Amino acid sequence: MASIRPLNGFRDFYPPAFAERAHIFATWRRVAARYGFVEYDGPPLEPLELYTKKSGAEIVDQLYNFVDKGGRDVSLRPEMTPTVARMVAAQANALRKPVRWFSIPQLFRYERAQRGRLREHFQLNADIFGDGGESADAELLAMVIDILREFGLTSDDVRVRLSDRRLLNAVLHAMGHPAERIPAIYAVLDKLDRQPRELSVEKLATAGCTTAQVDALLALIEQTNATGVAALAPLLQDAEGATRLAAMQETLAMTQALIGTAVAPWVRLDLTIVRGLAYYTGIVFEVFDAKGELRAVCGGGRYDELLNALGGVDMPAAGFGWGDVVLGELLRDRGLLPSAPPSPEVWVAAGDDVDVATVRATVGALRRAGRRVEYALRPQQLGKQLKAAVSAGAAHALILRGDAPEGGTVRDLTSGAETSVVLATWLANQR
Amino acid sequence: MASIRPLNGFRDFYPPAFAERAHIFATWRRVAARYGFVEYDGPPLEPLELYTKKSGAEIVDQLYNFVDKGGRDVSLRPEMTPTVARMVAAQANALRKPVRWFSIPQLFRYERAQRGRLREHFQLNADIFGDGGESADAELLAMVIDILREFGLTSDDVRVRLSDRRLLNAVLHAMGHPAERIPAIYAVLDKLDRQPRELSVEKLATAGCTTAQVDALLALIEQTNATGVAALAPLLQDAEGATRLAAMQETLAMTQALIGTAVAPWVRLDLTIVRGLAYYTGIVFEVFDAKGELRAVCGGGRYDELLNALGGVDMPAAGFGWGDVVLGELLRDRGLLPSAPPSPEVWVAAGDDVDVATVRATVGALRRAGRRVEYALRPQQLGKQLKAAVSAGAAHALILRGDAPEGGTVRDLTSGAETSVVLATWLANQR
Repeated sequence: MASIRPLNGFRDFYPPAFAERAHIFATWRRVAARYGFVEYDGPPLEPLELYTKKSGAEIVDQLYNFVDKGGRDVSLRPEMTPTVARMVAAQANALRKPVRWFSIPQLFRYERAQRGRLREHFQLNADIFGDGGESADAELLAMVIDILREFGLTSDDVRVRLSDRRLLNAVLHAMGHPAERIPAIYAVLDKLDRQPRELSVEKLATAGCTTAQVDALLALIEQTNATGVAALAPLLQDAEGATRLAAMQETLAMTQALIGTAVAPWVRLDLTIVRGLAYYTGIVFEVFDAKGELRAVCGGGRYDELLNALGGVDMPAAGFGWGDVVLGELLRDRGLLPSAPPSPEVWVAAGDDVDVATVRATVGALRRAGRRVEYALRPQQLGKQLKAAVSAGAAHALILRGDAPEGGTVRDLTSGAETSVVLATWLANQR
Repeated sequence: MASIRPLNGFRDFYPPAFAERAHIFATWRRVAARYGFVEYDGPPLEPLELYTKKSGAEIVDQLYNFVDKGGRDVSLRPEMTPTVARMVAAQANALRKPVRWFSIPQLFRYERAQRGRLREHFQLNADIFGDGGESADAELLAMVIDILREFGLTSDDVRVRLSDRRLLNAVLHAMGHPAERIPAIYAVLDKLDRQPRELSVEKLATAGCTTAQVDALLALIEQTNATGVAALAPLLQDAEGATRLAAMQETLAMTQALIGTAVAPWVRLDLTIVRGLAYYTGIVFEVFDAKGELRAVCGGGRYDELLNALGGVDMPAAGFGWGDVVLGELLRDRGLLPSAPPSPEVWVAAGDDVDVATVRATVGALRRAGRRVEYALRPQQLGKQLKAAVSAGAAHALILRGDAPEGGTVRDLTSGAETSVVLATWLANQR
């Protein structure tokens, strides 16, 4: 039996690993609360149809799906969006708009077993339903930046790469690309960073782009990356182009006001951010480590059509998903994760002239005052008790003495400094 | 698509339901921390063998098990004990003893679909590994009582029904029952409350008990329930009997010292508490509502052999499992659950002479001070903004005015009272 191992791709969270996870969850929750988001959850097991309706039958290859004992096709949830769309749609009329909801579900994918490739992870999902404007987009971008800052990351560590499909469409239109070519261009942009440049050029040509168009597009992307949204101004002269440009500038200005510091170091306009061929209809963004060593930390955008497609309710929506795995690597690398689970605040120790009931009564009083307290469960010499306290990482020992039952000694276990205390007074001050 | 429902027996946690769950989890975590417990987690999906090795092949009927795409027999976890036994056994030498661990896993059972019968629930699991004595038992009992108190329950609401298999064995031995009859008696005691008395009497007779033995046993159970552990003293005269009696008295005395109040109103010695035919070796206990209207709220005990059987490591263990469903019913019935998710602390509102960037900058500053803040995402008349603040349940509105940009008005949205503030000073005091 000692040989039964956990399944491949699944994690055991021993207390030190759990402490890292708890730190990540608590940080997410703290910032989400400030932004007025309330938490929800759904079932980790859902009807398979919930996912195939959104993503087509080909998604099944990647799912942890099975037929249950009642003959139902079911799946462990691979993502939260279909669940939240179902839930919001079911109460669409009763919910106060805009709806600000977040969740931290564990998600599952049956991916080919690879070293270091997990089959489960946790993901912060935060969405605003019921507002289709730039102000909702800015709330989400500011929240992303505030979460990064709350973890102790700076704009030297991470970068939000932002685009907008409506803006990109206006750019491509202005550059003379017909609408039917746009999906092919999206597909190339999505992989621009991850495939050789020649291959991208070849694919753009195959899609019908002239050499001049290819050169212009690639040059514009570089120029936008370097100088920001202003680089698009000369190109976007028609009404739709001007509107999209102004909207992006507005989104950035609103985000800047919310975060209380210049937005440029945090957010870079990057027209290569496409987020696959999925359901986005407006802004799209991903967060990367500035060194570019890791996969995306977080990604999201606006998806105004999805609630209608999934839940039959017409409601604009925008949000993001933020996994715990890449984030954990980044924070660990920067020394921004706790190294150990919490240790006792007080270890109650006693000489052998002290009644054990007195020790337990003192322990109980301290715990009722909210303190994290341990003590030796078996009678031990005082020296051994103090050694146990140190090895438990306790901050302080409270030493009780039989010859002076109303007093005690508090020892700082880091410095070794001792203070005599009146027990009743000291206990009263612990609350 | 609007017609895709969640699976039978699985819960959607809308924000009000999530707030109840969060309250329960936070209370569990707060008390566990005071007792020096650290949190862990394991995979929600495990090899099927992990459960059949412990409970036999017949357990499979109740499991959410399936064959995964790699041909492995796997199961959603029905309980946490096999996982924690596997984890502790794997690091048995490295862990500081006693090990105080807790977890709040979601657990799954494929039970026959019945109205109100869930297929998932959350369960606090708390265990002490590496100490086999009464002091560890008392720590667990005191922790159970402190959790009940932390929820606002009193000894009028709930009762811990405590027994000990070693004590019960000594009692049955003293009453003249041979060892081979004991499992049959256990089975009757386990169901004594839930089946007609005649049936119990009949089964005891079938097991070989004389009429006098049946009468004596049932009388003793009533007497213990009424007068406590002292009722057993006349019976337990041999060395083993006296040892078991003293151990029970010791456990109760230690628990009393830890909880700082009389233990009798909280804990009742009840020889009918058996906890099925499972793996327990010492104390066993269950928590019930005092009215007896609900199923057990919590149950646990000592299981010193299980880690050896499951993990190949010889380590005493005791712990308990505490589900969220029956507890939730009890707390809801007593009005001890939050009725709504958290609402905004401050709603920032502004007259139409205020620049929207100023509103966002104020919102950002308040959020960075840790406050939960919302505001109107779209320009609205001040009256409408304040109405929205009230309907969001905001505690206060901060009203900005363009004609006095350095001041503001704080309105208490419950009383309607207004206070003029200097903005910079007020913001500085929000941290």
